[in-house]
Amino acid sequence: MQLKILHYFKNSSDYVSGEEISRNLKISRAAVWKNIEELRKRGYIFDAVPHMGYKLKAIPDKLLAHEIQNGLMTRFVGKNIECYDSISSTMEKAFGLGLEGAEEGTVICAESQTKGKGRRGRSWSSPKGKGIYVSVILRPSLALRDVAKLTLLTGVCVCEAINKMTSLKSTIKWPNDVLINERKVAGILTELRAELDQVRFVVVGIGINVNTPLSSLPPQATSIKQEFNKSISRLDLLREVLKRLEELYTEVQVKGFARVLNRWKELSSTLGKTIRIVDQNGEVEGIAVDLDDYGGIVLEDSEGKRVVRMSGDIH
Amino acid sequence: MQLKILHYFKNSSDYVSGEEISRNLKISRAAVWKNIEELRKRGYIFDAVPHMGYKLKAIPDKLLAHEIQNGLMTRFVGKNIECYDSISSTMEKAFGLGLEGAEEGTVICAESQTKGKGRRGRSWSSPKGKGIYVSVILRPSLALRDVAKLTLLTGVCVCEAINKMTSLKSTIKWPNDVLINERKVAGILTELRAELDQVRFVVVGIGINVNTPLSSLPPQATSIKQEFNKSISRLDLLREVLKRLEELYTEVQVKGFARVLNRWKELSSTLGKTIRIVDQNGEVEGIAVDLDDYGGIVLEDSEGKRVVRMSGDIH
Repeated sequence: MQLKILHYFKNSSDYVSGEEISRNLKISRAAVWKNIEELRKRGYIFDAVPHMGYKLKAIPDKLLAHEIQNGLMTRFVGKNIECYDSISSTMEKAFGLGLEGAEEGTVICAESQTKGKGRRGRSWSSPKGKGIYVSVILRPSLALRDVAKLTLLTGVCVCEAINKMTSLKSTIKWPNDVLINERKVAGILTELRAELDQVRFVVVGIGINVNTPLSSLPPQATSIKQEFNKSISRLDLLREVLKRLEELYTEVQVKGFARVLNRWKELSSTLGKTIRIVDQNGEVEGIAVDLDDYGGIVLEDSEGKRVVRMSGDIH
Repeated sequence: MQLKILHYFKNSSDYVSGEEISRNLKISRAAVWKNIEELRKRGYIFDAVPHMGYKLKAIPDKLLAHEIQNGLMTRFVGKNIECYDSISSTMEKAFGLGLEGAEEGTVICAESQTKGKGRRGRSWSSPKGKGIYVSVILRPSLALRDVAKLTLLTGVCVCEAINKMTSLKSTIKWPNDVLINERKVAGILTELRAELDQVRFVVVGIGINVNTPLSSLPPQATSIKQEFNKSISRLDLLREVLKRLEELYTEVQVKGFARVLNRWKELSSTLGKTIRIVDQNGEVEGIAVDLDDYGGIVLEDSEGKRVVRMSGDIH
């Protein structure tokens, strides 16, 4: 009933009387009042004017499932959303749900994480209420070696969503960092369960420093608020990311990754630069000249020899 | 105490008196007798001669953890073994243990499986007491794209172990079938949990039709007993496989996969043949000419064009 009342207010531009709601939703006026009080407790702000009624002035700055879904307009990404005030890690939760057979497109998000995960067992700083920490379960019909491209795809979604909602030009650092002014504003993590010739499911994790103060972040990181000089709506940004994720994910399953990889190259801050990559095979240095068909980065060394790296850290 | 008594018998080539055991293991003669009766119930066969004592004549034809470990001589593979009389699937069990952090080298085996798994959701026929159904948890420091080679490595182990214990020449059909006289005698399944640049753990599953009657197997399958015309010890074969697995696995982590892939090529029944592969990308036909660096099969079509396939079924 709270959601119904909320919906009623969202569809009304003017003040709404308790009587009107009571009549339309077929509940008592006392029930209307009680529900509005409950909504106020959850952070919704109502203006109340005698003889005119109530008006919804503001929704809470929280990632609530029904608020994310409000206007999301996706087909499967976000049909199921679980939101947590605090969780150890959205990745762990989503992986567990994936094992239990959760539907493709299931979204786990949290206001804060106590053990937010980055790549390679690193941590992801997840202060409360300021960032987006979200994991999405996907069940792509992809070979194992094609999965790396999902990380690139997600990078494109995050980068484009940030650029759309701000006047900023964020870029992507291979393989999975989104940067603004060369400082990391978002990271992407991909975990999977697979057989060799069949991916069972993939969990794509996205962490974005949205309105996060620099003091809560590691030295080389930044936030959208810091770079844009104002706060933006986490809800709007998350919806934008999820919409794009569904769009591009659907596209690559039908038409392949070519267009998405090209878009990645346009947004990349890595291509054209001389970089040094360290991974389990050691260290290589060269100019980043291209992506290969599987999402690996192609380096050309000083003698013109090309090597491909699928993973690792850029220095 | 049963294991101690068993160990005592295994180290004695002649009859052992109850008194001798009682003295050496510091238990009463009644306790000796009671333990021997217990062992008999578990399938151990003792000869008892008045005034001479007992002699261990036969151990049960069962995959018991302490029997597998007896003489195994590995460093980590099989240090922990869980054996089940019946289980839904050793793969599922091992994957669950992998998630819980089970040690590298943990072995799960079963006398029978109610939902034995093959590749791509297929089933693996697992009649009781006749085959080897085993899964091993590994935690390799490998990139995702190198994992396919673990399947090839395991194929080499199984193929060599069968050939060592029989006069047969089993061969490997890419990627993961072991054949005798062109009929499938063993299969290998690899499942994993990974991030893009870090494998968390791999479960290697091995199913071998050892003493299985043809009537319990699918039409195109065979068993070692069928081809060798006699039963062989499942215990001996399993130990042989596990020993080789540790050996080759240790080797590739230090020296890389080159030697193992060469060995695979020697044992292969696929290379040199014209084959048709069907996978999620469709169908390709050509002569199988080589393995690529990542364990994919290289096909050369009638126009000399080469394509690589990482997975799929050979027809």
